[in-house]
Amino acid sequence: MTLHIGMVGLGRMGGNMAKRLARAGVAVIGFDPDADARAAFAAIDGCQSVDSLEEMVHALPPMRVVWLMVPAGEQTEATIAELAPRLHSEDVIVDGGNAFYKDSVRRAVDLASYGVRFVDCGVSGGVWGLENGYALMFGGSPAAAREIEPFAKILAPAADSGWLHCGPSGSGHFVKMIHNGIEYGMMQALGEGFALLKGKEDFELDVAAIAEMWRHGSVVRSWLLDLTADFLREDAELADVAPLVADSGEGRWTALEAIEQGVPAPVLSLALIMRFASQGKGEYADRLLSMMRNSFGGHKIEHTAEPSGKAK
Amino acid sequence: MTLHIGMVGLGRMGGNMAKRLARAGVAVIGFDPDADARAAFAAIDGCQSVDSLEEMVHALPPMRVVWLMVPAGEQTEATIAELAPRLHSEDVIVDGGNAFYKDSVRRAVDLASYGVRFVDCGVSGGVWGLENGYALMFGGSPAAAREIEPFAKILAPAADSGWLHCGPSGSGHFVKMIHNGIEYGMMQALGEGFALLKGKEDFELDVAAIAEMWRHGSVVRSWLLDLTADFLREDAELADVAPLVADSGEGRWTALEAIEQGVPAPVLSLALIMRFASQGKGEYADRLLSMMRNSFGGHKIEHTAEPSGKAK
Repeated sequence: MTLHIGMVGLGRMGGNMAKRLARAGVAVIGFDPDADARAAFAAIDGCQSVDSLEEMVHALPPMRVVWLMVPAGEQTEATIAELAPRLHSEDVIVDGGNAFYKDSVRRAVDLASYGVRFVDCGVSGGVWGLENGYALMFGGSPAAAREIEPFAKILAPAADSGWLHCGPSGSGHFVKMIHNGIEYGMMQALGEGFALLKGKEDFELDVAAIAEMWRHGSVVRSWLLDLTADFLREDAELADVAPLVADSGEGRWTALEAIEQGVPAPVLSLALIMRFASQGKGEYADRLLSMMRNSFGGHKIEHTAEPSGKAK
Repeated sequence: MTLHIGMVGLGRMGGNMAKRLARAGVAVIGFDPDADARAAFAAIDGCQSVDSLEEMVHALPPMRVVWLMVPAGEQTEATIAELAPRLHSEDVIVDGGNAFYKDSVRRAVDLASYGVRFVDCGVSGGVWGLENGYALMFGGSPAAAREIEPFAKILAPAADSGWLHCGPSGSGHFVKMIHNGIEYGMMQALGEGFALLKGKEDFELDVAAIAEMWRHGSVVRSWLLDLTADFLREDAELADVAPLVADSGEGRWTALEAIEQGVPAPVLSLALIMRFASQGKGEYADRLLSMMRNSFGGHKIEHTAEPSGKAK
């Protein structure tokens, strides 16, 4: 019996996940608000696109599984609001986006009023997931979790590893949130370490060669180090890369979770805060410190090159 | 032609490295101040023990390579002081311990006055190195580095990976120091993340299963996570493990290096500081804060169970 799934959101993540499912013989019905994305998707073997969520519901055999890979927040909220009344009892919505876990707890309750089951699923693996498989961590009732297991076994790196039903609704996105919090800390640790290697100018260290060497037998070997070795091999100076790091929900939520639990997570929190600093959000404080040093000690103030305007 | 090497220090690291070399056909002459360690070593195939450094020098054919795996600091200093005058011109001392890189720069200069060449070599891999191989990062002149390459190719996970001549004297221990600094940050990030998983009591998360799942396809997959998954599988509560984390030189030196360079490494520094906190070194500050809260707000002071003594 052919497995069917509806995939909503055919971007970098959803599109690749659909491809991985289709390659394994799953019939994937895809929808994306963008017509070009739909057309590109329809050209993939085993994939069919539809022009609306309504049409998707009709195209899927019952007990429908609709997997959302849309941005967390308003778009997820709007998609679920449009989808829920069209689905039938026992159908399953999987939210594979990076939603805040408390939203997922609420959505599971809300959807239950339609008889629709909800699974919150954290997905890790980025653009490499298509080939390597994705780590999947999901939350929901045992019955609902069982419905998505056949898909998890295909999306994961192997049928018996890389996926987990973590617990009740919200727990999938909770575990993904903590995963990303750890990711922030690991990235910052690697970033700071390589900055100190680069900063030791008299040794003229080849940071690309060091990254590659550490991949073999060292304690810090990791997938993030593998990626770092790859891009440093191409360009170790990174002069063209702006020193500005975006942050997203999970890093902030992890820091807030630590405060809510009253459990110290200073490194995860500081890794987040260093991203704020990279975004220039600490500049007003720096200007203020510079003025204070001038006020009490007469220390020189450096002036900005641009004409004076509103300070960041 | 058989390769010969002298190994000084036959503990967990030196003993296993000697075994890995002997398995590959290297004739290993070993010395350890402890007679039992020497006897155990002599029983290994391809290994021979000697009763003094003097005897080791006589037992090795020229151009001698003597590899030290002794604790950094006084023991390394004393061993080199005893060994140097006994060695001959062009002989090589390799310090495979975790010495401070500035000591290694100084030792290379000091040993040059004896005509003895010095290679500082950071070794990573812990107790798993015997089977998996060690990551080796070494510093010294190109000629001296070439002398130890045949051994590096055996000790590393593979002949063509996991070892690197990083640069001049001191650079091997410098790179190892930064490696360990990164290790501190990664460990703390994982520790904090798992604490938040454990702290989310209403989800009753299986942290061992989560660690195992993350090993496959996630962004945080790493050797440290592999080890974590292994020990959590045996015991996820860790109730018998004292929450006290030792620190060693490299973590402190990394934080000092950041200050010396004037380059921010807040996460690596904080990971170190959290180990100090785990050692109870922050308790006087905590007592003080408790007293202040009592002083200005009348907040209750908790009293220690033990009779009053000298506060930590």
